[in-house]
Amino acid sequence: MAGDLPGIVVAGASGRMGRMLLQVLSEEPNLRIAGALERPGHDWIGSDAGEAMGGAPLGVTVTDDPLEAMASAQGVIDFTAPAATIEMADLAAQARAVHVIGTTGLSAEDIARIDAAARHAVIVRAGNMSLGVNLLVQLAKQAAASLEGWDVEIVEAHHHHKVDAPSGTALMLGEAAAEGRGQDLEKVYRAARDGITGPREAGTIGFSAIRAGDIVGEHDVILAGQGERVVLRHVATDRAIFARGAVRAALWGQSQGPGHYSMADVLGL
Amino acid sequence: MAGDLPGIVVAGASGRMGRMLLQVLSEEPNLRIAGALERPGHDWIGSDAGEAMGGAPLGVTVTDDPLEAMASAQGVIDFTAPAATIEMADLAAQARAVHVIGTTGLSAEDIARIDAAARHAVIVRAGNMSLGVNLLVQLAKQAAASLEGWDVEIVEAHHHHKVDAPSGTALMLGEAAAEGRGQDLEKVYRAARDGITGPREAGTIGFSAIRAGDIVGEHDVILAGQGERVVLRHVATDRAIFARGAVRAALWGQSQGPGHYSMADVLGL
Amino acid sequence: MAGDLPGIVVAGASGRMGRMLLQVLSEEPNLRIAGALERPGHDWIGSDAGEAMGGAPLGVTVTDDPLEAMASAQGVIDFTAPAATIEMADLAAQARAVHVIGTTGLSAEDIARIDAAARHAVIVRAGNMSLGVNLLVQLAKQAAASLEGWDVEIVEAHHHHKVDAPSGTALMLGEAAAEGRGQDLEKVYRAARDGITGPREAGTIGFSAIRAGDIVGEHDVILAGQGERVVLRHVATDRAIFARGAVRAALWGQSQGPGHYSMADVLGL
Amino acid sequence: MAGDLPGIVVAGASGRMGRMLLQVLSEEPNLRIAGALERPGHDWIGSDAGEAMGGAPLGVTVTDDPLEAMASAQGVIDFTAPAATIEMADLAAQARAVHVIGTTGLSAEDIARIDAAARHAVIVRAGNMSLGVNLLVQLAKQAAASLEGWDVEIVEAHHHHKVDAPSGTALMLGEAAAEGRGQDLEKVYRAARDGITGPREAGTIGFSAIRAGDIVGEHDVILAGQGERVVLRHVATDRAIFARGAVRAALWGQSQGPGHYSMADVLGL
Repeated sequence: MAGDLPGIVVAGASGRMGRMLLQVLSEEPNLRIAGALERPGHDWIGSDAGEAMGGAPLGVTVTDDPLEAMASAQGVIDFTAPAATIEMADLAAQARAVHVIGTTGLSAEDIARIDAAARHAVIVRAGNMSLGVNLLVQLAKQAAASLEGWDVEIVEAHHHHKVDAPSGTALMLGEAAAEGRGQDLEKVYRAARDGITGPREAGTIGFSAIRAGDIVGEHDVILAGQGERVVLRHVATDRAIFARGAVRAALWGQSQGPGHYSMADVLGL
Repeated sequence: MAGDLPGIVVAGASGRMGRMLLQVLSEEPNLRIAGALERPGHDWIGSDAGEAMGGAPLGVTVTDDPLEAMASAQGVIDFTAPAATIEMADLAAQARAVHVIGTTGLSAEDIARIDAAARHAVIVRAGNMSLGVNLLVQLAKQAAASLEGWDVEIVEAHHHHKVDAPSGTALMLGEAAAEGRGQDLEKVYRAARDGITGPREAGTIGFSAIRAGDIVGEHDVILAGQGERVVLRHVATDRAIFARGAVRAALWGQSQGPGHYSMADVLGL
Repeated sequence: MAGDLPGIVVAGASGRMGRMLLQVLSEEPNLRIAGALERPGHDWIGSDAGEAMGGAPLGVTVTDDPLEAMASAQGVIDFTAPAATIEMADLAAQARAVHVIGTTGLSAEDIARIDAAARHAVIVRAGNMSLGVNLLVQLAKQAAASLEGWDVEIVEAHHHHKVDAPSGTALMLGEAAAEGRGQDLEKVYRAARDGITGPREAGTIGFSAIRAGDIVGEHDVILAGQGERVVLRHVATDRAIFARGAVRAALWGQSQGPGHYSMADVLGL
Repeated sequence: MAGDLPGIVVAGASGRMGRMLLQVLSEEPNLRIAGALERPGHDWIGSDAGEAMGGAPLGVTVTDDPLEAMASAQGVIDFTAPAATIEMADLAAQARAVHVIGTTGLSAEDIARIDAAARHAVIVRAGNMSLGVNLLVQLAKQAAASLEGWDVEIVEAHHHHKVDAPSGTALMLGEAAAEGRGQDLEKVYRAARDGITGPREAGTIGFSAIRAGDIVGEHDVILAGQGERVVLRHVATDRAIFARGAVRAALWGQSQGPGHYSMADVLGL
């Protein structure tokens, strides 16, 4: 019976991530949607979450009361804002519910409060919830450590609306590779080759950014030696992968003891 | 009998390209080596060309006399220097021999003299003799013309000794794409994205340069629309491709009438 | 004013392709939606087409009367069934409207009737309306013709639900390559290497099929010589590309004289 | 001084691997060539190893006496045959020299004897000495374990002379992925999709083999979920990578205690 499955609350239900989470949870056979939260005054309050999205009813009424939403929940997924997330961390810990945090922009102080809450509850927190990206970060670190002396290059491709380069994920991959070699990325970062560049400096990590069409996000970590090359690639074709990763984290957390976990833990790395 | 095959002279026999040409010709079933030329005073003069390379004899004595070398030849392949090439163009025209020119750095005046020689002889001239690259240039032009409004990006990868970016071949591909759209590459060229770049400007052509290991040369022309992408890729794994393309041009030229041809003609494009 | 733009009717409006066509047309600045057709008795009849899809109104009422739908139209896009398409070809010719046909399963007799209608009207017909795929077919033919003696391999990747291999598009690409070499694909087709295969037979075309995840569709045409390789790749990430290609064909057709055209004509190939 | 560097003997010096090993060692700054071995009666015996290869002298005389060759050696690299390798294992152990074994076709009994020798000496043994391939095997195992439920496909490409499919390396990668999931490769192996295949069976591992041109060897391990994909790729462009890996193993072994090691140990995995 669905009533026996762990129930998950979606915080920030009306946002882009909130809607994706409701969608992914509604298709997940091992979890059920236990609640949908929005801030007081939001026009979704009191409506069925599914109908508010313009789809079929989900049997869950959107509320602005976290306690009510958490009443029968075993987890909450939260891609909101730092203040709301800190408050939710305490509530979730009291409710012994798994708290999956995708919120960005948290300060060191915020993280200290999350650490405190994690003494009594399972918290999974990540800047990027994609399973594949988190795996690639670990593999890039290992590969860079093992293949000493090989050149490392990171190439990413995104849609033409993206306004910065390289992507945050490319930088995460670069940091992992640098860490694998005991280097500081800031010192070995090289980008933007154009004109007379001279030969490549050994030990550096080069970045290239492709911008074209509506590419969701592709990342290559290239490690090149003499006569051979290893390429570690991630291709995203759907932004729902972040919601799927968060749902997997919520499910994984059901069988863990208290602690502040990362996606690497969820992946068993 | 090999004596019935068209005979080809290699100019600049001791150079890197000259040696590759001798090697490729010695394995080509439809042509024979008719001579090997070096400048007066070179220490290969009078030796067997194969033995001079440190290999098996080829039965061809290196000479510094072009007339002697061309005596029984139906073609000459020439990756030398402008002055030697101009002189050879006249000699080859007199001998009714096909002249394949891979020499770079020719002036407009040099090219005018080659045009004059080509009124009476077959001349094939190209900056890059690789069959694959020359085909890709044509395909890139067509693709850019057909897929109007799609974003064009060019990505190249080379070994870590390369001192400039992007590669000459990447620029050839960019010029072809720009020409296909009636654009001037200088105006639409964009490279070196790093930091806050703003969204991609429509109609531009972006370039990225990867430098890693001992990569011989790889080029991608990416054309990206909404929901689909075309990638035209060339991968070189052996520098002998330039020699192979020249040999193919020498063979192709045997059945042509006088004219100044390009590799696009050889490829039937 | 939108009223001055060419108006396009969508036949089979409630189908998967019909909905995509309405969506793509509603975002196309150079065309307007002039009508939406469904078969008599369909429950969309009489409703606004946008609302029937569960979205915002489009100001177009779904009708079962082709004459009414075509009254103020300059084109019709039709991914329906052979019988409906044949009938529509006559109506469109009478209305001097461009008829874009994506219907599959047409018999030789059906095509003869379409040819007849095309004496007085512009008809664009294709088995695959993707711009990129149609371009790739042309490029594959050219490349195979130019790079004589190079090995041709076709690799495709699709989602794990696909029940046949290789894909229809892979076969189209293989036919184009074979045609470029004056070969019959049936004779040179090779697939499914497994075990002791012996060396690759020269002149054959090899096919490989990857099945994984939810890949929409990717195709590589690989042409490999000695020391170099050309790869022509198409990546589809969104099934709407077929609707987009049809809309582009409808727009292109506005400025053509009568004739039975293909997507190669639309692409200017 | 070179005399202070660890000295390495090359067994089977005249073979293809032997020559590559001499070449790679002659360019390695942290090792020196201490000897070159061939079987009694070989026509290289008594000649300088470098001159015997047709190059510059290396200052090492080819001998058929292992004891003489090993006299001043700290290691031996051996891509010969089982009987010679077993004998060498004992000699190397007595000499406290690192024994790097790339010999294939060893029986269980042979391996037991190598194990015995490894109680007193450092032995590194691998079926494939490429650093990149050995790393990829480890990464494939990890990725398959972490990304449960994702489809795994292995695609390899080799030159057109190769007579079997899939390659041994592709099978190694498949075994690693299967092991990561607690599966038996024989049960989940699927290859050669052609015709009506039905949907992909969950939990299987698919193999595809591309044969084209002179491709040295390329392997992709594709792991595909919903909306994202990870690809782990190895590209070999030079067969000398096997010699380079063996030389790296010989250097690594200088600072190890006795044991029977694999390339995974050399890579620190």
